[in-house]
Amino acid sequence: MSPKKPAICIICFSGDLDKSLSALALAWTAAGEGFTAYIFFTFWGLALLRKERGQARHPLERLFKLLLPVGPDKLGLSKMNFGGLGALFMNKLIRLRQTETVGELLQMAMERQVKFIACQGTLEMLGISKDELIDYAHLSVGDVTTFLQLAREAKIQLFI
Amino acid sequence: MSPKKPAICIICFSGDLDKSLSALALAWTAAGEGFTAYIFFTFWGLALLRKERGQARHPLERLFKLLLPVGPDKLGLSKMNFGGLGALFMNKLIRLRQTETVGELLQMAMERQVKFIACQGTLEMLGISKDELIDYAHLSVGDVTTFLQLAREAKIQLFI
Amino acid sequence: MSPKKPAICIICFSGDLDKSLSALALAWTAAGEGFTAYIFFTFWGLALLRKERGQARHPLERLFKLLLPVGPDKLGLSKMNFGGLGALFMNKLIRLRQTETVGELLQMAMERQVKFIACQGTLEMLGISKDELIDYAHLSVGDVTTFLQLAREAKIQLFI
Repeated sequence: MSPKKPAICIICFSGDLDKSLSALALAWTAAGEGFTAYIFFTFWGLALLRKERGQARHPLERLFKLLLPVGPDKLGLSKMNFGGLGALFMNKLIRLRQTETVGELLQMAMERQVKFIACQGTLEMLGISKDELIDYAHLSVGDVTTFLQLAREAKIQLFI
Repeated sequence: MSPKKPAICIICFSGDLDKSLSALALAWTAAGEGFTAYIFFTFWGLALLRKERGQARHPLERLFKLLLPVGPDKLGLSKMNFGGLGALFMNKLIRLRQTETVGELLQMAMERQVKFIACQGTLEMLGISKDELIDYAHLSVGDVTTFLQLAREAKIQLFI
Repeated sequence: MSPKKPAICIICFSGDLDKSLSALALAWTAAGEGFTAYIFFTFWGLALLRKERGQARHPLERLFKLLLPVGPDKLGLSKMNFGGLGALFMNKLIRLRQTETVGELLQMAMERQVKFIACQGTLEMLGISKDELIDYAHLSVGDVTTFLQLAREAKIQLFI
């Protein structure tokens, strides 16, 4: 029996363009270095997993589903965003450097089978169903207990 | 002799409504799962422990004691706050879902005896005395060394 | 042979005045308590290591090199910054309390030989060369793999 692989367990909370780049680069690199990598998407971080706007059954739900970006290409910077201009220029800079956007890193993470967990509490609060999230074999829905069970066994835990 | 309980050690720095929900949900759940849970409240995070505005002996002290919210019900969102409107709508959404506000989670964490540590350096910097903080048997004042001693033995450490 | 020293591994991402105070206070204290302390400066956090503005070969590069502060004395607060006023008042409060500014804590961390790692990916993206960073014997350039190797052996890892 081979020794157990080390694990890294990242909470992707902010859903910011720059912080998401960090979270995905860490998980993708770790997966390539022999780690089992987990990303727990919660709160604004769920934006990365959304594939469609979905229905809303209440005005408050509609509001937050409108405010939360759909997918990895609509994120803003954590600072110097200037109403989206900062994110636009950062994405242009990423293109200029021929490096990866958040959307591309998300794809690359999936190719390396990084485990994605969507936070059940956030889904319920915002009224997002699992159908409104991307299709990915290693995407599951989990709660805080799920996170704690993974994180306590992991070598590295980060809240991003 | 029973084996030592695992520990989780969270730095609550931001004092944002949304991030505080995460920090408290993690600590409260962990305490229910057999962890010893610690939250180290520093900088803006100290807002959650304040019960009164207190006196100020200097205009700068007065300014920061005025800017820092008093208690868990006055926090703003880390983004989309729109001068407090975002927080207002988030709290309405929390009510609609019949889930817990930050203030309720704070109470629940105390019922599970989550250990609270107020950062001594922040208290001194802002001129807040321990009397201005909530009364709770498991609240103590500690410094960075206190945190490091707890964190190095903990299974999980997060900066939120 | 003496037992290996415990390590703490901090990602300094935000480059905010308040969060940088936390990151440096943690690393400096840990180094004094017998830890090997590492700070991995990435994204906005690289501001702390810059000693000069440097040249830019492209308008986008010029923009981000202009937006990113040069050195630890130009940082803003993560909230309540009000266009720099908040940072100004916080630095005045630090003076009033006779405690340390970010610049002073950075010096103190270097006196305790905290290991600094500048993120290679960020340097390349922003077009910053190592010559534009402070001179310090324990400053090296590293990538995500470098971080993972250090972090997996560390007792404490934090993303700040």
